[in-house]
Amino acid sequence: MPRELTERQALLALNALPGIGPIALNRLLEGFDGDARAALAADRRKLESILGPAAAVVREREAHFDPVKEEGKMERSGVVFLGRGDPGYPRLLVEIGDPPVGLYRKGPYTFGNPCVAIVGSRRATLYGQSVAKRLAADLARLGFCVVSGLARGIDTAAHEGALSVGGTTAAVLGTGIDIIYPPENLDLYRRISERGAVVSEFPFGRQADKDSFAMRSRVMSGMCEAVVVVESDMYGGAMATARFAGEQGRLLFAVPGRIDQSTSSGCNQLIRDGATLLTKAEDLLQEIQYLGGLRPAPVSPPPGG
Amino acid sequence: MPRELTERQALLALNALPGIGPIALNRLLEGFDGDARAALAADRRKLESILGPAAAVVREREAHFDPVKEEGKMERSGVVFLGRGDPGYPRLLVEIGDPPVGLYRKGPYTFGNPCVAIVGSRRATLYGQSVAKRLAADLARLGFCVVSGLARGIDTAAHEGALSVGGTTAAVLGTGIDIIYPPENLDLYRRISERGAVVSEFPFGRQADKDSFAMRSRVMSGMCEAVVVVESDMYGGAMATARFAGEQGRLLFAVPGRIDQSTSSGCNQLIRDGATLLTKAEDLLQEIQYLGGLRPAPVSPPPGG
Repeated sequence: MPRELTERQALLALNALPGIGPIALNRLLEGFDGDARAALAADRRKLESILGPAAAVVREREAHFDPVKEEGKMERSGVVFLGRGDPGYPRLLVEIGDPPVGLYRKGPYTFGNPCVAIVGSRRATLYGQSVAKRLAADLARLGFCVVSGLARGIDTAAHEGALSVGGTTAAVLGTGIDIIYPPENLDLYRRISERGAVVSEFPFGRQADKDSFAMRSRVMSGMCEAVVVVESDMYGGAMATARFAGEQGRLLFAVPGRIDQSTSSGCNQLIRDGATLLTKAEDLLQEIQYLGGLRPAPVSPPPGG
Repeated sequence: MPRELTERQALLALNALPGIGPIALNRLLEGFDGDARAALAADRRKLESILGPAAAVVREREAHFDPVKEEGKMERSGVVFLGRGDPGYPRLLVEIGDPPVGLYRKGPYTFGNPCVAIVGSRRATLYGQSVAKRLAADLARLGFCVVSGLARGIDTAAHEGALSVGGTTAAVLGTGIDIIYPPENLDLYRRISERGAVVSEFPFGRQADKDSFAMRSRVMSGMCEAVVVVESDMYGGAMATARFAGEQGRLLFAVPGRIDQSTSSGCNQLIRDGATLLTKAEDLLQEIQYLGGLRPAPVSPPPGG
């Protein structure tokens, strides 16, 4: 029998199970009426009936992960872990097919505003970066939370743009929340976590891989009303985020670019495939208002901002 | 009574009536079962019942225009005048609401191929010009006749692109067919009229004005299966051609560009409003084939080309 865990600790342990993704995890929790402790303490037959051969990792989890140690790390770095029922868990994210069972968060922001993801290539042109920055600033001024992935290029420009007007921004990581990549974004990470939020579904220390980046993409689009791809070639994370946006029924916008620059080929493709061509923040506001009557309250910059 | 005119001379005279546009002219011809001579010879009451006060110009037409002299000019410059029923009058053009009652043509081309208009701004960037040239070359290679307006910038690049691969191109003028503007395009005019066609609905000597450019736009889109706007700001003739394309039910394509360059603002606007984003000739071919099963026969370059 595992030792006595709090419900939060049990959820942390479940969330950290290696090789078990959100789909299986949601199925497992459903099998125990959402009771994480009961899921962890279940006998092998019951676990196997839900997870099949993967059930073994639940029984072996104590070798891999100590939720008490994890809580210690969280406390030392000012990180909280939000279950799906907790206030501060992004409202829209619950609606996707396979939401994370919980999210680590560093920063005071509780996702009260409608969110818009601004994403694009790491290898961005000056054009893409300047568009991302201006667009993020304008959307933040309108009261949106600007969501991106803290990566180089477009992501960085988007976060910076939102911060530049005292707006709200959130970074969704494809790694553990304690891993700051790229290293030159350490200061940006700090500023986001002071005013906004850095979030991750992964346990501390989790390194990035292809899976984790795809999982991050689905969380970014899932928590947002709309996704804007500012600059992207035909491949990469931003295109994945755009695909998730489509599957999740989110509004999808793309910024066009020259047809002789491969850096815009993904965006142009998205527009041809039905994404709305975006040239300014008002394009997005208009469409969101049209669909939902939604209008965020514009932010005023903070006293020192 | 006017002196005895041939049917062709009567049509030339009708077409040259000052201040009477194609809508009124078509109504007038219909009133006489398409008989231009009968229309010219009609009495004042009958003319006024169709044209209202504008009827006066029909009675006064001999002071303004001598169709015999016009025929002399045509002959000296190798120009023919095609009525709507004549072979060589562009097939699709007959279908628009107010087709020209006739077209002057210089050049051997008889509009047997499907036509695509490639249009854009006079003040084009190098980007726009290179896209127009490449696209025109590719469409010409596929067997389309590339239609444009002989203007500076995108038009010139489009004609040149088609000629560069030995393809067919037609220039539609907003002036009399004897007026070559801009002057630096004299050589281009000659090369087009050697292999393709220069056409105009206006009598010899007619100078350009806003009306004549708008009329030219409607003819360009009217004779084409599709219109491609390669580079345009929010105003100007290319946008007018795009509007006509919409009204006439033609396929409308636009090439996207950077959102921070006003030279692409018109194209981006057209795409947002429903024009298909185009990045290469195959995009257009695909859509045309999808709609109509139409596929032009690819041209092989002429022996000397």
